[in-house]
Parts: sequence; structure tokens; C-alpha cells
Amino acid sequence: MFAAAAAAWEAGKPSVVERVEVAPPQGMETQTPLFPRIFGHEAAGIVESVGEGVTDLQVGDHVLPVFTGECGECAHCKSEESNLCEPLRINTDRGVMLDNGKSRFSINGTPINHFLGTSTFSEYTVLHSGSLAKLNPKAPLDKVRVLNCGISTGLGATLNVAKLKKGSSVAIFGLGAVGLAAAQGARISAASRIIGVDLNPNRFEEAKKFGVTEFVNPKDYDRPVQEGWGVALLVGVPGKEAVFMTKPINVLNERTLTGTFFGNYMPRTDLPSVVEMYMNKKLELHKFITHSVPFSDTNKAFDLMVKGEVLRCIISMED
Amino acid sequence: MFAAAAAAWEAGKPSVVERVEVAPPQGMETQTPLFPRIFGHEAAGIVESVGEGVTDLQVGDHVLPVFTGECGECAHCKSEESNLCEPLRINTDRGVMLDNGKSRFSINGTPINHFLGTSTFSEYTVLHSGSLAKLNPKAPLDKVRVLNCGISTGLGATLNVAKLKKGSSVAIFGLGAVGLAAAQGARISAASRIIGVDLNPNRFEEAKKFGVTEFVNPKDYDRPVQEGWGVALLVGVPGKEAVFMTKPINVLNERTLTGTFFGNYMPRTDLPSVVEMYMNKKLELHKFITHSVPFSDTNKAFDLMVKGEVLRCIISMED
Repeated sequence: MFAAAAAAWEAGKPSVVERVEVAPPQGMETQTPLFPRIFGHEAAGIVESVGEGVTDLQVGDHVLPVFTGECGECAHCKSEESNLCEPLRINTDRGVMLDNGKSRFSINGTPINHFLGTSTFSEYTVLHSGSLAKLNPKAPLDKVRVLNCGISTGLGATLNVAKLKKGSSVAIFGLGAVGLAAAQGARISAASRIIGVDLNPNRFEEAKKFGVTEFVNPKDYDRPVQEGWGVALLVGVPGKEAVFMTKPINVLNERTLTGTFFGNYMPRTDLPSVVEMYMNKKLELHKFITHSVPFSDTNKAFDLMVKGEVLRCIISMED
Repeated sequence: MFAAAAAAWEAGKPSVVERVEVAPPQGMETQTPLFPRIFGHEAAGIVESVGEGVTDLQVGDHVLPVFTGECGECAHCKSEESNLCEPLRINTDRGVMLDNGKSRFSINGTPINHFLGTSTFSEYTVLHSGSLAKLNPKAPLDKVRVLNCGISTGLGATLNVAKLKKGSSVAIFGLGAVGLAAAQGARISAASRIIGVDLNPNRFEEAKKFGVTEFVNPKDYDRPVQEGWGVALLVGVPGKEAVFMTKPINVLNERTLTGTFFGNYMPRTDLPSVVEMYMNKKLELHKFITHSVPFSDTNKAFDLMVKGEVLRCIISMED
């Protein structure tokens, strides 16, 4: 079948919405810096067809594509401590499907690479069934489509990793969508103090809507703002050259350094519970959706993101 | 009163057992690199007299001196996350009592400094009441006297901080008394694999007695032995110049760096429970006591320690 899709042909150049041929799903499928390529990983959709061997998803199921999968069989999936599925974990370098090492996208016979196994900037896409979380069909796709990455990561950081106790104090460094999702988790955990730390004070007004109770701009202080005991939790992808340094005595003195990948959520198993948190009004997901653009303006959504002017911008296929 | 005590007069020189005058305890007392000084912090004893204001200890009580105290009133003592009592935490630089800033020891009028608030290399010593854990009087003082520092630290590292689940795997780097106490905690937690890692294979035979199931000498391998996900837990005092460096991506990939001071035990509140673990035969404390010397041979105990030939050497006042 054919689909309108935003195809990226070169690094640094805008994507172009084109008519792309999408091959049917192969065994176990429902598909990284490679060009040409179709980007996109935060989305929601409906299963159009399934390949051979897919038993846990049916045509018509509402689904969230996940950029990191869950095969359910590997040592990581079977462990309670890991969500880094061996075959389906995030892989930005792979542009093909696992089944036969080929792409399902093409334009006039030229293969177009997949991205993160999701490539959601397309009307139709093909994914491994282990990269899809099945949704409550009552969940509104136009809202829960932002749950597949940063927002669940921030939320899970406080709920699953920091495991904040009622009345505890939390400081959140960086008040973008991930930080504000962490603030939602802190509010749900009944933290007494939710301290927002950002070098950009323009972030503070919006952060109030997400439950942040106090604000600190490190530029206003001469001394470090991170003194005291506690758990430091790294969320989000650091630069490849970044190095963390500390004196070992700091970890002896009641400080812990940890991090989380996707908020420690098992993507297929746990995302439905996050959807339920939105359905029962605990998680204020709608507040994250600050902008919307039609599919033809996909590159405008990137511009807004780079400028730091959005929390989440919906790219609307329907328009 | 007068007491035989091992007084250290200069750095690097052996201590000398001398007749020392010990002043009575002052307000709230029952007493750091300063010379002359009386060292010693792992010991057990019986309260001989109490100063003004001491209400929770009586003459005749069996007690464990603790090198880090618990006032019960400060923010740290009131927190569930900290055992670093503000006024009574470990302080190697203080050689006097908090009450009046003076020492209780003297030889012919020359003040002798206290050490860690304990100075247990003396027949009689004076401590702050917040630096004494009250014991079950049935507990044998000749065994539980080694619970005040490294052994509780290693034990608490596995029981209180790592909180090993039944069937989990643990690797212990360094098979001295602290590491072997961690192994005891792992055995009590029903860990399935307790892997002892040491550069000195002579440690392996003794470690088997403490529940270590497998042994690795990093010298036998070309690749790092610490691959895989999990919690890295630092125990013991690092060098002042030591620096810890890692790539931040490591903490995102399910690795946590943490540490523990005194096994996260609250010294006064929790040590009695560790004593009970010995009394009900869960903790094999007797295995740690490998040597014994009379009080006059205190310096021999130091020599044995420096050579790495002992786990714990008892210095016996009675001999």
C-alpha cells in the first residue's frame, strides 16, 4: 500500500512529505542515523494488518508504538530490574526490520530506512509486534499518543525509581516536558516540596500548572544549589562525550547516583497502566500538548522543539 | 580515677601503655589526628558512672561505644534516610568532649586527646551518652565488641542498602572483614550466587567459611569483571584524592552508584538488632575473631592489621 510519509533524505535537511510504498508486515512485525529515512516515534494508531506469528494483536486494536520494545522472552524482559530488552531495545543505528533485515518502506523502488522501529511520520508504518503496547480502546488517541517516550520517562523517574514518599522534597533540574512529567509524578506521590530548577526563568510560570511549588534559578546563587543528602536521578540521553565525576566520599555520605531508561517502565506491560492514570485524571496529560501542526508542517514542529517553545506539538494526520 | 591506657604520643610511633588519669564524666557524657591521644573504637564495656543529665543509661549497663553517635534530636536522626547525626557524627579531628571542649584524660596534668569520641584503648574511658548503644546484658562482650564498625557496615550494606532479594547474585570486591560481613548479609538474604573478588587468592579459602560461593581474581582476566546491570555500593572510606569517573549513559542503563556509612544503621537504635542476629545464630560473628593479643601487645595488633593477616584481633584487657 501507499502512504503519505515525511521522508528525510539527508542529515540536517528538512523532511519531505512524499507518497511512500509500504510493504506488508512480515513475521513478528507490525520497524535507525541512516538516510533516506522516516522519523517519528511518539504516536498512537490502529492495527491495519498483522504478519505471520502475531497472536497478541489483532486488526483494529488501538496501539502505542514504543521506541524500545519488549520481547517478553530475553533475560532483561524476565528480570524485574531491567527494561532493556535484548533484541528490541532502542537502536538508533538500525534502519531495517529484524525479520529479514530489510525495510518495509520504498519510493519508486528505493528503500527508505526505518527509525527506532517505529517511523511514525507516516500514515502507515510497520513495527515488530514487540514494539507495540495495546491500549484501552476508550483512551483518546489524540492525547495518549504523547506517552511513548519523555513523559512516561519523567513520570516513571519519580514513581518507579525515586519512589518518593509522601511529604518528601524533590528538586527537578530542567523544566521541559520530561521535568514537568517528573513534577506530575511528585504531585501524585504527595511530595511536600517540588522545587523547579532552570536557567531560564520563563519556564517557571508554566511549571506552576504542573504542581511545581518553588523555583530556583542557579544564576541567582553563588553556592551550589544541590547541597544535601538524597538520590540524584539522571533522566534523558547525555552527550556521548559527557563524563560524570565525583569524590567517592559523596556516595558514602548518603548520596546515590542513579538513572532511568524510559522511567523503568516495561513498555508493553506497563504503558496501559500509565494510560489509566490519564483516564482516571491522575495524570494531566492534556497540559503537555501545547501546540499542533498539520502533517504537511512536520518540519515546523522540529523548529518549535529546537527553539524550546513547545512541550509537545501534535502532528495531525487528519488535517 | 586512674587507668592503664595505650597512649599514642606521635604520628607513626607505637602507642605506650601508661597509667592515665581519667576525669569523671561531665554533662551528657559517658568522649580525634591529635597527639598525644588514646585510640580505639571497636570495644564493649560496662557503665562505671554517668554524668549529669544522662537518663537512658545506668551504672552497670552493658554498652557498645560507637564511633559515630546518635543524638536523636537533629534533622539527620529524625530522618529515615540519614544516620549522620549532626553533633555526634564521626569526627577524626576532634580530641575533646563536646560538653566543655576539654579532654577527660591526662598524664601528670598533660591532657591526652580523645579519638572518635570513644578512645577504647583504655581500662576506663568517657563518652557522650549519644555514642553508646545499650546491649542485651546476655550478649557476650568478648564477641559483640567487634560490631561497632566494619562488620555492621558490611552486613548493613547488603541487608539495608542493597536489600538483596532471595535468589539474587552479588559480587563482593575485597574479602577482608567488611567484605566477608557483606557476604554474611548476602547469605542471610538467601542470595543464590555470592561471588568473591580479590587480587589476593589467599583470601578465597577463608571466604568459603563465610558463604562465598564463587571466586574471581581480576588478574586472571583481560576483560573487566564488573559488566552487567545492577547496583554498585561503595563501602569504606576512600582516599581523600580519589575521584570516581563514569559515562552518564551507564546510570541510564540500569546501573546505580551508591554507598553506605555504617551500613545505614542508626548506631544506638539499630545495633541491638545486630546483636540479636548474633544471639540467634544468624550472624556468625565468632568467625571474624581470628586473633587475640594481651593489652600490653596493642601495637602487635596494629602490625597484624597492616599485614592483612587478621580479620579481627581482640585486645584483651583481662590478660
